[in-house]
Amino acid sequence: MQALWLEDRRLSIRNDLSIPVPPAGEALVRVGLAGICGTDLELVRGYYPYAGIPGHEFVGEVADSPDGTLIGCRIVGEINVSCGECESCRRNLPTHCERRTVLGIRDRHGAFAEYLSLPLRNLHRVPDTVPDEAAVFAEPLAAALQIQRQISINAGDRILLIGAGRLGQLIAQTLTLTGCDLCVSARHPRQKTLLLSRGIRLIAEDEIPARHYDIVIEATGSPAGFDLARRAVRPRGTLVLKSTYRDSVNVNLSSLAVDEISLLGSRCGPFDSALRLLEQKAVDPAPLIDAEYSLARAVEAFELAKRPGVLKVLIRP
Amino acid sequence: MQALWLEDRRLSIRNDLSIPVPPAGEALVRVGLAGICGTDLELVRGYYPYAGIPGHEFVGEVADSPDGTLIGCRIVGEINVSCGECESCRRNLPTHCERRTVLGIRDRHGAFAEYLSLPLRNLHRVPDTVPDEAAVFAEPLAAALQIQRQISINAGDRILLIGAGRLGQLIAQTLTLTGCDLCVSARHPRQKTLLLSRGIRLIAEDEIPARHYDIVIEATGSPAGFDLARRAVRPRGTLVLKSTYRDSVNVNLSSLAVDEISLLGSRCGPFDSALRLLEQKAVDPAPLIDAEYSLARAVEAFELAKRPGVLKVLIRP
Repeated sequence: MQALWLEDRRLSIRNDLSIPVPPAGEALVRVGLAGICGTDLELVRGYYPYAGIPGHEFVGEVADSPDGTLIGCRIVGEINVSCGECESCRRNLPTHCERRTVLGIRDRHGAFAEYLSLPLRNLHRVPDTVPDEAAVFAEPLAAALQIQRQISINAGDRILLIGAGRLGQLIAQTLTLTGCDLCVSARHPRQKTLLLSRGIRLIAEDEIPARHYDIVIEATGSPAGFDLARRAVRPRGTLVLKSTYRDSVNVNLSSLAVDEISLLGSRCGPFDSALRLLEQKAVDPAPLIDAEYSLARAVEAFELAKRPGVLKVLIRP
Repeated sequence: MQALWLEDRRLSIRNDLSIPVPPAGEALVRVGLAGICGTDLELVRGYYPYAGIPGHEFVGEVADSPDGTLIGCRIVGEINVSCGECESCRRNLPTHCERRTVLGIRDRHGAFAEYLSLPLRNLHRVPDTVPDEAAVFAEPLAAALQIQRQISINAGDRILLIGAGRLGQLIAQTLTLTGCDLCVSARHPRQKTLLLSRGIRLIAEDEIPARHYDIVIEATGSPAGFDLARRAVRPRGTLVLKSTYRDSVNVNLSSLAVDEISLLGSRCGPFDSALRLLEQKAVDPAPLIDAEYSLARAVEAFELAKRPGVLKVLIRP
């Protein structure tokens, strides 16, 4: 089959790969559409030593499955494949399985391919009314919703989101659904336009008041974004890390202790909630799509995706 | 009056200082006994640009007060003096008042003196059965209890405390009162003996299992202690920062995000609970006292306090 291949920080199209043979409990999925995420770009930059087929945001159709009833169904898939036996799994934290493989990120070929294999338990059926172009956002949308699963957002909370890229846009859309008092710091004109079109309030970086926000969400993945977030959060406030950072960041831990800040890491989230919001059309990812490329042109798609300000680039096998 | 004076990282005894004249709402306190804390040592090292009388752990007697009934009463005092008007104060977070002065730490002369002045609302009467040698620990004991005020500790939680110095010993004693499953990593033989004498379990640094503990409390204030804590906490676990650090620390923020760690700063705590535990003798700080010096020998007291493994050194004006 055809797939995008990543090795030694280089991407290439390969046509010599075999269609995966799903092990017991897994289904073979024909990929319909896949999205390029910030993590994919970081993988290419060497953030994690992955070699293989990248890609973890996808929608597809079950081509073969031990559960015959699923064959032909449109599905999206959770990306962490857990062992079911380690301590994290026993604590019902499968996304933190110590022996997990992660679709297109760790020890498991990903979605920029004609086919992929995932356990049945990772799959979620896509409601008929949700088109592929929306369903392909289920994974990042779930990640955005994870914030609300980790912290409770109260009516009077002042919330600042720093970064309005691929993930930031979805975070902004989901946060507004809580009725919270949200401000977003965005850099690129199109990011701003998209937020304004949904009635989301913007704030210029140099106008962000210091020590003011109850909750600050850092979604830039840059040390500058982290510093801005740190300055903006009030004493006893919460700073949510919704990004990965290429390098270690110098942090003034004393000031975190003195101000009793809560710094909270946040990663994968609930697919069921994400699909429900897409079905209700409460979240609209369509305007985030900048381009769609055929799988054969996936390297070109990555070139576009890494340009500043570009949002979602899709790849269709 | 006589007092210890800190200026340009130098300590000296001064005998030329005036007895403070309390402004409206404040009481004049004759200091009975004061304790040297890690923060005092950090102040001398230049951690914070303070000039004046240091000292914030004390027990004393009210010498003069707008509320006549308090005169002659034995009291301890909360160290943060809040403005009552700023946003933090309006949110009922007086310890985070943006305009606060802090006894012996920020813009307010401290307890290594014959007298000090504090607002009436900062004072707590000491129960008759609590001797000065115990009451002088009210402030650090309250700080230890702050952990339990910030996070709920569940029956099955595995808790690791790193650092068993002045504050660490009190944290260990208060945590055992929750019935939790506590392990302490201590460096100095006497720290270990004290913990063992209370039936508190020790663990050697090189035997601390990685990614294992639900809650890790970092009370060393060293980057090495932070790294150890980070390695020991499990995914979705909580790392409590119960220390200040001299410098910024290089932190792998990506791993905090991926493991969804909660990093929580923790500072001043509830004096009322601290006094209650001292009254019940549920906490016993007496064995932590290494030495007592007269105020005239306070510089010498600091020399002793900064030696590795030394716990509480008291100063009696």
